[in-house]
Amino acid sequence: MTFTIERSQIEGLVRSAIRGSLAASSAPQSASKTLAGFQPPGWVDGKPNLRVSISARHVHLTDEHVEMLFGAGSKLEPDKDLYQDGFYAAKQTVMVVGPRRRMLPNVRVLGPTRPFSQVELALTDSISLGIDAPVRHSGHVHDTPGCVLVGPAGTVKLDQGVIRAARHVHMNFADADHYGVKNSDKMQLVVKSKECSVIFDDVLVRADEAAKLEVHIDTDEGNACNLEAAMEILLRKDDCGCQKK
Amino acid sequence: MTFTIERSQIEGLVRSAIRGSLAASSAPQSASKTLAGFQPPGWVDGKPNLRVSISARHVHLTDEHVEMLFGAGSKLEPDKDLYQDGFYAAKQTVMVVGPRRRMLPNVRVLGPTRPFSQVELALTDSISLGIDAPVRHSGHVHDTPGCVLVGPAGTVKLDQGVIRAARHVHMNFADADHYGVKNSDKMQLVVKSKECSVIFDDVLVRADEAAKLEVHIDTDEGNACNLEAAMEILLRKDDCGCQKK
Repeated sequence: MTFTIERSQIEGLVRSAIRGSLAASSAPQSASKTLAGFQPPGWVDGKPNLRVSISARHVHLTDEHVEMLFGAGSKLEPDKDLYQDGFYAAKQTVMVVGPRRRMLPNVRVLGPTRPFSQVELALTDSISLGIDAPVRHSGHVHDTPGCVLVGPAGTVKLDQGVIRAARHVHMNFADADHYGVKNSDKMQLVVKSKECSVIFDDVLVRADEAAKLEVHIDTDEGNACNLEAAMEILLRKDDCGCQKK
Repeated sequence: MTFTIERSQIEGLVRSAIRGSLAASSAPQSASKTLAGFQPPGWVDGKPNLRVSISARHVHLTDEHVEMLFGAGSKLEPDKDLYQDGFYAAKQTVMVVGPRRRMLPNVRVLGPTRPFSQVELALTDSISLGIDAPVRHSGHVHDTPGCVLVGPAGTVKLDQGVIRAARHVHMNFADADHYGVKNSDKMQLVVKSKECSVIFDDVLVRADEAAKLEVHIDTDEGNACNLEAAMEILLRKDDCGCQKK
């Protein structure tokens, strides 16, 4: 039995944008330098400038898979720069097909290409596809389910690589010093929203010299706390530790 | 431009089940009484038995709307009892249509009927429909968006009533005494899950003599914390209050 459904309806199920948060959009966008003349990546007025972004479902591809999906000689074409320098949403999208012929159309490819292909879904997406994707940090794809990717020029069968990306925060070492954390620590993200405030535990620190301070959560997490209508956003080292229950 | 899509693919986007949590399923299901011979609704072995349920998107209807959608003389037909006594998922479903002809097919109707019709969506659903539904508690539908409901026998245009249900906890007065809370207080729900633990603020207490202890969260919230794989679930009166930031 089949349904006829408008393309716009299907596209309505896809959130392709990586959205900046209240914290980012309300912060002054000054390009001023600190007194010493040096300002770490992403800092504004001499201090960290917290941004929280919702990562909609997306795909990372190898060079080889780009050619298999989009044709020999094809390259990813940057469409929109992401907040982290050098990363972009490509013009290309793929269809992600799960078992029992369920599929997600028009899943955005992010660039640049990588040494392995990987599909990052929210749990809601994973359920709709019928894939039991585990919560993993990017690159940790051992023992994860696979899927089929369909592009205009061909298909790719991934034996593994479908994950729900675990929440994390990119930061440079000046940001890490500011918060008193180091790479691989876990932090808390507090989002105050009307009637639906949330404290996210397990926010993994991914510290890198060139990174700008940015928390990545998925659409389920962003929607659970209504991020885009948030009144206050706070990143903190850990919970209070008082263990009151 | 149209797509042909399998019915199973569309149904895969719909989670119709109201699922019990780890806390509920792992608790002993003894029917024993307290020493005094009386046990409040839902208590097990003389104490509260916490259950956390994910409410998938659903619709409440008036008697009049049931007849308009399913035919003159139609009544809701109970299909599956919910945990709260007297409430059920009906056999009937409706299509919810938003602006720009986006729609959600097969949205479950919950019974019994009510004095007003209301559509409860997760934010992910709301975005896919193109409706900016506010976070509201059930019944608080003033100044909310409407939609069109389509059934096998007719359609109903709702001028208002589309909401994202705010998280809440049903309990009886013995439960309320146990936690030291009263009707309309706010509590915290702590969900410990691998790599994605969450503390939900703003859990509104809805105390009623006949209620059984049950937290209701929506699919976005349940998916954000991977409720079904949770290792520990805790309901507490409030946060620690230490205000450490």
